Amino acid sequence: MRSFFAPRSVAVIGASQTPTKAGHVIVRNLRALGYQGAVHPIHPTLERLHGYDVRPSLVAVPGELETVVVAVPRERVAGCLREAAARGARAVIVVTAGFADAGDEPGRALDAELRGLLAGAPFRMMGPNSIGTLSPADGFTTSITSQAPLTQGRVSFFGQSGMFASGLADMVRSEARFGVARVACLGNKLDVDELDLLEFLGDDPRTGVIGGYFEGLRDGRRFLELARRVAARKPLVVLKSGRSELGRRAAAGHTGTLSGEDAVFAGAFRQAGLVRAEDLEDFFDLLEGFGHLAAAPGGRVAVVSITGLGCVLAADAAEASGLSLPPLSAGCQARMRAVFPPWAPARNPVDMWAAIERSGVEAAYTHLARAALEDPAFDALVLVFTLIPEADFDAAALVARLRAEHPDKALAAVFMGGEAERLRAWSLAFRRAGVPVYPSPRRALRVLAALATRAGLRS
Amino acid sequence: MRSFFAPRSVAVIGASQTPTKAGHVIVRNLRALGYQGAVHPIHPTLERLHGYDVRPSLVAVPGELETVVVAVPRERVAGCLREAAARGARAVIVVTAGFADAGDEPGRALDAELRGLLAGAPFRMMGPNSIGTLSPADGFTTSITSQAPLTQGRVSFFGQSGMFASGLADMVRSEARFGVARVACLGNKLDVDELDLLEFLGDDPRTGVIGGYFEGLRDGRRFLELARRVAARKPLVVLKSGRSELGRRAAAGHTGTLSGEDAVFAGAFRQAGLVRAEDLEDFFDLLEGFGHLAAAPGGRVAVVSITGLGCVLAADAAEASGLSLPPLSAGCQARMRAVFPPWAPARNPVDMWAAIERSGVEAAYTHLARAALEDPAFDALVLVFTLIPEADFDAAALVARLRAEHPDKALAAVFMGGEAERLRAWSLAFRRAGVPVYPSPRRALRVLAALATRAGLRS
Repeated sequence: MRSFFAPRSVAVIGASQTPTKAGHVIVRNLRALGYQGAVHPIHPTLERLHGYDVRPSLVAVPGELETVVVAVPRERVAGCLREAAARGARAVIVVTAGFADAGDEPGRALDAELRGLLAGAPFRMMGPNSIGTLSPADGFTTSITSQAPLTQGRVSFFGQSGMFASGLADMVRSEARFGVARVACLGNKLDVDELDLLEFLGDDPRTGVIGGYFEGLRDGRRFLELARRVAARKPLVVLKSGRSELGRRAAAGHTGTLSGEDAVFAGAFRQAGLVRAEDLEDFFDLLEGFGHLAAAPGGRVAVVSITGLGCVLAADAAEASGLSLPPLSAGCQARMRAVFPPWAPARNPVDMWAAIERSGVEAAYTHLARAALEDPAFDALVLVFTLIPEADFDAAALVARLRAEHPDKALAAVFMGGEAERLRAWSLAFRRAGVPVYPSPRRALRVLAALATRAGLRS
Repeated sequence: MRSFFAPRSVAVIGASQTPTKAGHVIVRNLRALGYQGAVHPIHPTLERLHGYDVRPSLVAVPGELETVVVAVPRERVAGCLREAAARGARAVIVVTAGFADAGDEPGRALDAELRGLLAGAPFRMMGPNSIGTLSPADGFTTSITSQAPLTQGRVSFFGQSGMFASGLADMVRSEARFGVARVACLGNKLDVDELDLLEFLGDDPRTGVIGGYFEGLRDGRRFLELARRVAARKPLVVLKSGRSELGRRAAAGHTGTLSGEDAVFAGAFRQAGLVRAEDLEDFFDLLEGFGHLAAAPGGRVAVVSITGLGCVLAADAAEASGLSLPPLSAGCQARMRAVFPPWAPARNPVDMWAAIERSGVEAAYTHLARAALEDPAFDALVLVFTLIPEADFDAAALVARLRAEHPDKALAAVFMGGEAERLRAWSLAFRRAGVPVYPSPRRALRVLAALATRAGLRS
């Protein structure tokens, strides 16, 4: 499996000078990401592409060849697999679509032909209909969309969609949501499937958190056994689509997968200790939380909010997600009152506007957050901001200090409204300081609840 | 009630030279927004503030005085109300907090004193603990946070939180989510409450869509009668917090409101034809949808998506929200196939990647979207984009054309991932073209379902 993420050499069949072609972008990305292995674009007549020597065929590639990417019309894919086998390749990624996903007769016939070839193949294959992998620490990718370097980190995610190594990778990078270890797009799963990925990522020392998206599972029983073992070591977030009949039919069209009844999955996932994401936003919210917050907190949460609205919505969300908002200890309450006017109460959730008016925004956040984090009544702190000019200060520096002072507590931020440019700048700075950022109390508390549930399973 | 949004004159008691003080910001905002009425800052010794003449007291204000804003310590508020009455003011907004929301004995006593004064008052009062209103077409605001001009439009929203005229207004403006008619923050609702706002906005010719946030209702029966009448004329979106016991206690601390059992509200809201938002994100999602999409579509949706993931998630979301994704008509299917390679299927939801590879991104989106909109099998179209370099074109111009060609159909966009700067630019351009933008198929379809439900109620 390592050959899919960090090969010493890679050939790209279907290399092209046309900038819109997959075989062009794949080679350009390897150059752009600074991949250090050998790159062999394959094309019958081209001589050079993005500074690499082009070879007319796999046979003409000098030296060892570990990994082959296939990006040619579907009729030619089987021939490429035969060549890859002859050449001794260990991993093949087939980008080309139009097999079981097409649903036409030739597509089904070509699908059957690939299955026949794979039966005795000396290599593992990802796809077809897979845009492959991303591995930032190795500068490696086979994505067919333009890639810039991702921040390296401990979160790996994979699934049956090319989006993970294209638009969603771009989102993770440009919003600095978390650092990335490995990404894989499984496509039609004719050979490599979620079991292979789980096994590899479970043992991968770079991977600390795993996210998997499934439209269906080929072998549910084996998956759950393996997932249970992996989840005992690393947080495992799963998003399962095809929850509805309509969704199952769409999944059959997308990657030719048959998916089962949703209720069966729900119970099994819970028993195996997996964290089930409700939708794609929730999936990345959870990966962001587990990616930044290594500590395993309990479910006792303090909320310090610039707005009473944040307090009320946080209280609703806490109850809905099974967290508690216990009272401040007497000592904590006394400390907090020092920044409030005499008439204002200090209670959890803490509505801090009066403290800002009296003591200034930086002093109020600093004092109240420290008091909450030092109160043993709490496992976690949610700081609610609204990014208005009146509440401007170097909050990223503050949360970085708080994280350093209290590595044992979970700290999350909520940005409720405010000016969009400011929101973007603060989000980047907070996440770089290791603090996850959510757009509502509900989404922050949902993630803290998942962290607490996992901590409960482990204790 | 008009005096709260578009008075001919306004006095600000508590005007100040200190930039962090509410009485400073309120006056500065009136200057910045170009309010054309008379502005009278009140301060015992100051002479000028932001270019306005300062008066030592309300009595010294020349001419008629319509509206008074009170931003002084809580002990002095009652005195200000007496002056306002003596001066013949018609509307008073009390920004000051620390009454029933404080929960201390002096707070309760001051609350009782205000209640006594209001019994025979010749004016209406908003607050206390209210930062007041925003009315873009009148250049009027009493917000205590810095305001820049909002795009004028048909959406009005109000509730028991200062966030609506501060951080959330900033969000609506900087993300260009929709045009705004009126905003009001009700605070502790000692006099003006949701009934007054509903009545005013229901008759307000500028207001086409209403959003209301409640922590509790003072008179549930009267509210529902009125809401039913208003909802028959204009979409009425409600967010009710205090859904949980914890939330109800937090609401009592926030604005001194007692809120009732959630289940009671849920059924009553549905019967009255209100659209109930699940949380604050959903509230603004719904206002954006109703704000842009005046047409009342049915529930038959076509999805055209750059990614199969979008198709599968859209299908799940459609079933969950009660929408249907009917098959393409034969003619529509034939038209769509013209941009696909021969092997690729064209079915709803439409996975268009193969069409982009064959025909180019602009041609594919244009051709497929037109075919779907011209197919009488559909009431609505969801276009799913991922903002990668390979899918770059002037999509805002396309959706503007599609809106103009098909004003009778609901058109919504989903941006699933991509680069953040690009996402921001596209979001602004789409919304300016009148097309609402959502970050997931689930959120787009949820809004289309609410539009369809409302259309069903009206038909």
